Amino acid sequence: MKKQGLLLILSGPSGSGKGTIVEQLKAKDDFALSISATTRAPREYEQDGVHYFFRTREEFEKMIANQELLEWAEFCGNCYGTPRAYVTEQLQKGQNVILEIEVQGALQVKKLYPEGVLIFLVPPNLEELGRRLTNRGTEDKETINRRIHRALEEMEYVQDYDYVVINDTVPQATQDILDIVHAESMRCSRNKEIKKVFKGEI
Amino acid sequence: MKKQGLLLILSGPSGSGKGTIVEQLKAKDDFALSISATTRAPREYEQDGVHYFFRTREEFEKMIANQELLEWAEFCGNCYGTPRAYVTEQLQKGQNVILEIEVQGALQVKKLYPEGVLIFLVPPNLEELGRRLTNRGTEDKETINRRIHRALEEMEYVQDYDYVVINDTVPQATQDILDIVHAESMRCSRNKEIKKVFKGEI
Repeated sequence: MKKQGLLLILSGPSGSGKGTIVEQLKAKDDFALSISATTRAPREYEQDGVHYFFRTREEFEKMIANQELLEWAEFCGNCYGTPRAYVTEQLQKGQNVILEIEVQGALQVKKLYPEGVLIFLVPPNLEELGRRLTNRGTEDKETINRRIHRALEEMEYVQDYDYVVINDTVPQATQDILDIVHAESMRCSRNKEIKKVFKGEI
Repeated sequence: MKKQGLLLILSGPSGSGKGTIVEQLKAKDDFALSISATTRAPREYEQDGVHYFFRTREEFEKMIANQELLEWAEFCGNCYGTPRAYVTEQLQKGQNVILEIEVQGALQVKKLYPEGVLIFLVPPNLEELGRRLTNRGTEDKETINRRIHRALEEMEYVQDYDYVVINDTVPQATQDILDIVHAESMRCSRNKEIKKVFKGEI
């Protein structure tokens, strides 16, 4: 029996360590990253269908109208979105897919694909978040304060998620997520063929 | 922050290996077994509040009327049930509790305590179930056939459960259940205080 892959949607404030965790999950080869569609111009090294699906604004708007995007948003005059076709194709092959995405987009995806699993990644506490953002050494105090403020705002959406993972250390948080993926794969709603398997029919 | 324990409700056909798995989970010290109330007379070595809560039929009927039982059933003229007070007391102490219980009882519990996690344990397939029941050497062919028939009937209830665990080997099935417990402990619905923890308020 070929099992459908799992769509994991990971959000969390800046400084929660999403990027590192996603790298870990990919390295463990359990996950494909989704490829975004965008209206922005490709950079020299970027290839269509590898780094992004590059689309004109007209094409992008057609994708929105046809509900071909699981979610989309506009930043600095360019549109970015998650093409549904690429994701479902991966899932049907039995491949788990991970979307690293901000809160509004995550909730859009959950609406269109309720089987998706929403995970909110948080730093252990505000103090530690401040420490991590400061230690990066790349942002000034005002930017850091803005990010902390934004993190507090985003925390209001935790209750709309399925799981919350505290990123105390990267190996532990990665394992937490793998345990969630393992448990979700045993959900009865994802194993509707179990009776047939038991009876030896498939 | 003191976290509430998890109520795990484990069902599965005869030959699924429930008993062995429960022993493993208890040995790992993650679980307390609930203590049943019964109207049957205590055996010589049995102590009230240790092996069972021994009650008269009148007392037992009062418990039913007052909704003091999470579930109950009658076998061979004696009533057996799961007292709600003992279970909730353990859960409030942060202790995980496991109920090994048949399908009808499990669904009763889920109605009264929706936060409970229902796990259905199954042997890999019918053939293997037949082999296990035969290898026990304790039942005749007719009893084995009756148990297999009953297993097929019980499988119809899988969809009412939260998770299905295939008991291929005991260590793997035990680990599967521990992963479910771990994942469930990260559910947002079980971590309503996370915002306060993050802000350092508790």
